[in-house]
Amino acid sequence: MSSHLMNADPQLIEDLVAAYRILAQHGVLDGFGHVSARHNRAANRFIMSRALAPQLVTAKDLIEFDLDGNPVDAQGLPLYLERFIHAEIYRARPDVGAVVHSHAPSLVAFGVTTVPLRPVCHMASFIGRAVPIFDIRNSFGLTDMLVSDSAKGRALAEALGNSSVVLMRGHGVAVVGKTIPMVVGRSIYLDLNAKIQQQALALGGTINYLDPQEAQKMVDAGENRSYERPWELWKAKALEQ
Amino acid sequence: MSSHLMNADPQLIEDLVAAYRILAQHGVLDGFGHVSARHNRAANRFIMSRALAPQLVTAKDLIEFDLDGNPVDAQGLPLYLERFIHAEIYRARPDVGAVVHSHAPSLVAFGVTTVPLRPVCHMASFIGRAVPIFDIRNSFGLTDMLVSDSAKGRALAEALGNSSVVLMRGHGVAVVGKTIPMVVGRSIYLDLNAKIQQQALALGGTINYLDPQEAQKMVDAGENRSYERPWELWKAKALEQ
Amino acid sequence: MSSHLMNADPQLIEDLVAAYRILAQHGVLDGFGHVSARHNRAANRFIMSRALAPQLVTAKDLIEFDLDGNPVDAQGLPLYLERFIHAEIYRARPDVGAVVHSHAPSLVAFGVTTVPLRPVCHMASFIGRAVPIFDIRNSFGLTDMLVSDSAKGRALAEALGNSSVVLMRGHGVAVVGKTIPMVVGRSIYLDLNAKIQQQALALGGTINYLDPQEAQKMVDAGENRSYERPWELWKAKALEQ
Amino acid sequence: MSSHLMNADPQLIEDLVAAYRILAQHGVLDGFGHVSARHNRAANRFIMSRALAPQLVTAKDLIEFDLDGNPVDAQGLPLYLERFIHAEIYRARPDVGAVVHSHAPSLVAFGVTTVPLRPVCHMASFIGRAVPIFDIRNSFGLTDMLVSDSAKGRALAEALGNSSVVLMRGHGVAVVGKTIPMVVGRSIYLDLNAKIQQQALALGGTINYLDPQEAQKMVDAGENRSYERPWELWKAKALEQ
Repeated sequence: MSSHLMNADPQLIEDLVAAYRILAQHGVLDGFGHVSARHNRAANRFIMSRALAPQLVTAKDLIEFDLDGNPVDAQGLPLYLERFIHAEIYRARPDVGAVVHSHAPSLVAFGVTTVPLRPVCHMASFIGRAVPIFDIRNSFGLTDMLVSDSAKGRALAEALGNSSVVLMRGHGVAVVGKTIPMVVGRSIYLDLNAKIQQQALALGGTINYLDPQEAQKMVDAGENRSYERPWELWKAKALEQ
Repeated sequence: MSSHLMNADPQLIEDLVAAYRILAQHGVLDGFGHVSARHNRAANRFIMSRALAPQLVTAKDLIEFDLDGNPVDAQGLPLYLERFIHAEIYRARPDVGAVVHSHAPSLVAFGVTTVPLRPVCHMASFIGRAVPIFDIRNSFGLTDMLVSDSAKGRALAEALGNSSVVLMRGHGVAVVGKTIPMVVGRSIYLDLNAKIQQQALALGGTINYLDPQEAQKMVDAGENRSYERPWELWKAKALEQ
Repeated sequence: MSSHLMNADPQLIEDLVAAYRILAQHGVLDGFGHVSARHNRAANRFIMSRALAPQLVTAKDLIEFDLDGNPVDAQGLPLYLERFIHAEIYRARPDVGAVVHSHAPSLVAFGVTTVPLRPVCHMASFIGRAVPIFDIRNSFGLTDMLVSDSAKGRALAEALGNSSVVLMRGHGVAVVGKTIPMVVGRSIYLDLNAKIQQQALALGGTINYLDPQEAQKMVDAGENRSYERPWELWKAKALEQ
Repeated sequence: MSSHLMNADPQLIEDLVAAYRILAQHGVLDGFGHVSARHNRAANRFIMSRALAPQLVTAKDLIEFDLDGNPVDAQGLPLYLERFIHAEIYRARPDVGAVVHSHAPSLVAFGVTTVPLRPVCHMASFIGRAVPIFDIRNSFGLTDMLVSDSAKGRALAEALGNSSVVLMRGHGVAVVGKTIPMVVGRSIYLDLNAKIQQQALALGGTINYLDPQEAQKMVDAGENRSYERPWELWKAKALEQ
């Protein structure tokens, strides 16, 4: 762990490292993408890895950032270009404690189609009624598609609004949660829901989506019990790696 | 093994632990879902794990329940909220010796579509003519989708009727069998049949389903020879884990 | 190795054991299905495993059979019920040195649809113009779907004709080859071709299949160089298991 | 390493061996297909393996070739029949430093359909506006589909033109890049893009492809930062094998 992170909760650090590996093991992250957590002692700071493939992240690769996306002390390490996704979501959403940005294939597919991503099973109740899509072209014209500054991060955070998820057209997704286990669980079950919806659509019939009130009741009932049960399994496997 | 399970058949206990791991290794269970077996010495009791991710279950995590879903001696351990699925099926179906509840993606897809799940291969003859779908909304309105009490368990058992399988809309599936190897084998080949039917539908032609009489003859002929051959393989791999 | 197999070529025995494991590692076989080879010293004999899950087969599980499907010396071991598939193909096809019977999901799908399986890539040139489908119902009415006697085996061999492959409706496939590496290679690339054809059909356009003359030229040119190159890799991985 | 390769850059040799294994681990190559690199000290020479399954390639299997596809010193080893793909691309494209030829299933599917392969995500910006398809039948009639001489290699290189990718009808694909990490990264993300496009098409809506100007801006911005980040991960995993 970098010295400037010494006052962060060791549990948070361990969970954040586990999150990188868990999402890689589930195919949500590949060699790209990232996870972050808001600093437990400073609401205007967040922690994420230096630019590194998720499966390789360890505690000593973690760096602290402010909400402008500036590292507190990068020690010359290369940074994720898209850290502004995280910075601006933490600024806009005080309720958010952790953020995932991935290129999960199932979600890229839903980000480029006119068919809306909707909840087909109770595990994905956090989707609610609909998932917003952020199209960078709407505000910034023809770009290199990357959320590489604060203005683009702000536009993404606006598209996210009060949702748990925002798809990014031609790019991927951002998922948010109160805790690291929650954002990891949501990322995994969002991917699964997308795959199931795709399978169900391919069958050729009519789909019975969850009623938004059903989805809301599941969220109110504790949303998969805060993913405590699978988190124990996922973390054990990630750390034995 | 918990002391209150000491009078259960050690073979049953070993098979039940293996079942959790086998179904996790086959992707039928993930961090959620559960398997149970009726107690070999008490028809009004069944055995299942405390609330735990299937891959982590060992003999010492097993607990005995009565048919109201009450643990005989939970020793303060957290319980699966949906144990009533199991309890009410054992009450309604004296022929059933083992029950699986899973969220297998292929079956969630068939649970939300108007396209019926039907047998496309001889390994899934136990499907018979049709698979009933349990929609919790029909009896209980807009809920959190969980079968979390005896009344909901009873409604599910009624939807199951005399079948081997009942799909649960927006949720998953319950599968029953006379023995643990049978319910595990059915769970694996039900998932496979769903995937094959989906592939066949995607080809765009007309499908030649098994004739219900063909399916019945296969069941009468011993239904995959009681899954003895793959069970030997599956169990060996599960226990070497 | 059973004593009665002592006069079989040790290379043949080793390759046959490897074949069981290779096909299991590729998902062509699961806990069911089987591979056989014609005996190198007796054209009216063939060798296959006792009834056992493919991944568990070792040399000592191999048994010699005659072309009526009778074991020369079964030593009381349980036998594959469908050994008549192999027996009757060896009787009808003197050019065949090895046979695979599998339930590969991609091929079960093509066995139940009106869409013909056709070659989409040069690796599957052995498919030729078309693949016959054996429907047991045509000659035997409503059965338990199993090829469990010589009459049913003969009907299957007739449906196969001079082809390399015959699909079995609602059941699986039989693949033949001159050698074990060839029947294994064909089984693997047949499965791959079915998956690719399915993907191509799902794209929604028109498919450019291989011209039958192209397929024939590939077969004449040595059909994937007799699968020597991948065989070396497959066998190394199967035996390190 | 063969003695005649002693003056090649050891880093290039190590990367080339890693490339074979990385592509096998990603399912881009199976028992067939190959990777080559232009010799660092001789622009009219390239290096690739003797005929061998990709997962088995080591430095001592590498051989040097001239642009007519002749080995400098083959030492009697068997050669890839399709080395002319590589030779003629190096001759036609001085900007190319590395070439991959694979039978990746997702790309075989796009090579036989009338539906064009197009970029759906920023990771596949190198696709640009369109991918050319090489149909060997156009110039050579009904063949065994193999690019087995210089004339066929030239025709393929012409079809490639200035693109990064050329699909080969009924066969596979050739991908080019300035460096080994780049051609490996392109091969992996081309496969991923094909899978995502296929998923998106199966959803049934209208697809929002990348605008060609967006794709160009991504390439100009460094194309996935030259794949440095995943390359570090991929190579570590390939060499620990």
